[in-house]
Amino acid sequence: MRTKNDIKQKALFEATIKLVNEIGFASSSVSKIAKEAGISPATIYVYYKNKEDLLVSTYIEIKRNMSKAIQKDFDDSLPIRDGLKNIWFKIFEYVSTHSAYFQYAEQFSNSPYSSLVDKQEIEKYFDPMIQVIIKGIEQKIIKNVNFEILTAFIFYPIIALSNPRICQDFDLSDENIETAFKLAWDAIRF
Amino acid sequence: MRTKNDIKQKALFEATIKLVNEIGFASSSVSKIAKEAGISPATIYVYYKNKEDLLVSTYIEIKRNMSKAIQKDFDDSLPIRDGLKNIWFKIFEYVSTHSAYFQYAEQFSNSPYSSLVDKQEIEKYFDPMIQVIIKGIEQKIIKNVNFEILTAFIFYPIIALSNPRICQDFDLSDENIETAFKLAWDAIRF
Repeated sequence: MRTKNDIKQKALFEATIKLVNEIGFASSSVSKIAKEAGISPATIYVYYKNKEDLLVSTYIEIKRNMSKAIQKDFDDSLPIRDGLKNIWFKIFEYVSTHSAYFQYAEQFSNSPYSSLVDKQEIEKYFDPMIQVIIKGIEQKIIKNVNFEILTAFIFYPIIALSNPRICQDFDLSDENIETAFKLAWDAIRF
Repeated sequence: MRTKNDIKQKALFEATIKLVNEIGFASSSVSKIAKEAGISPATIYVYYKNKEDLLVSTYIEIKRNMSKAIQKDFDDSLPIRDGLKNIWFKIFEYVSTHSAYFQYAEQFSNSPYSSLVDKQEIEKYFDPMIQVIIKGIEQKIIKNVNFEILTAFIFYPIIALSNPRICQDFDLSDENIETAFKLAWDAIRF
């Protein structure tokens, strides 16, 4: 059962994302966010030290939520390619059903606030997926190259393709997502 | 010869980028930018209608500058792969020598301001490069798939890899850039 506090925190989470996407980080004051969430500014300080803490926590919560969604029912006994394809489709699904979260996360990771995030904490959330890639390298199914290069081809094209600010006219159809996966797989396979 | 006006505009351009990278879009007021550039706020309004116009024009100027740099001495008689590899290295070179410009451009294209930009105007700057890709498709050297999918694999991995906010520990060595090009080429080749 969700407590009253859970409901308040959820309202705050959604209000922060909505307001920041509309007016940007700097204009989104604690009092405006509180008003949007329908709670008092004092209540925000019960949960968060300050505005920075609220913005950073919102970002981390989005990443945690995303990692849970894309790794749900993840079957690590599948062949490497099928396992990654599964995740690939789930990422597109997540992004298209959570576009506001995603927009916030992108804006955040390109802002000076991103230096306040513990990147290793975020990486922990994605560990099941990372383990599949490592297994693929060990089995000589995936190229044995710098890990950051691999992820730049497995994940960044999705971010570009699903961001309407970057690819305005891209149709997120199953066929296009499948084609894009074929390119990603051709890039990384041994 | 550069005129006094050119020098003022260049100072304004650099000051806008520096300040926005440091304190974000919303906090960067016209008066703060003027102070940073060492000119009077009134002078800004000689060149730009308002803050929005200044921010958008700065972004467009960065893209124009970048397109000129990466397509410099571009030889469209080269084989497709060599031509693209040439551009690939020039993009990394540009990004590593113009990290502040690039950081501004990334932050901008992920902010609500990006909706104010005429994307077709930007695309025009990159036309020589786009023509090489089209030639590659026609010659069945490059996969005949949606153009946005191709660019997501040719350009977005560079953006991720060269952005220290995304790939903190990535070493932009020639070897790594060459490996990354191999993956990009494997992704797009027929």
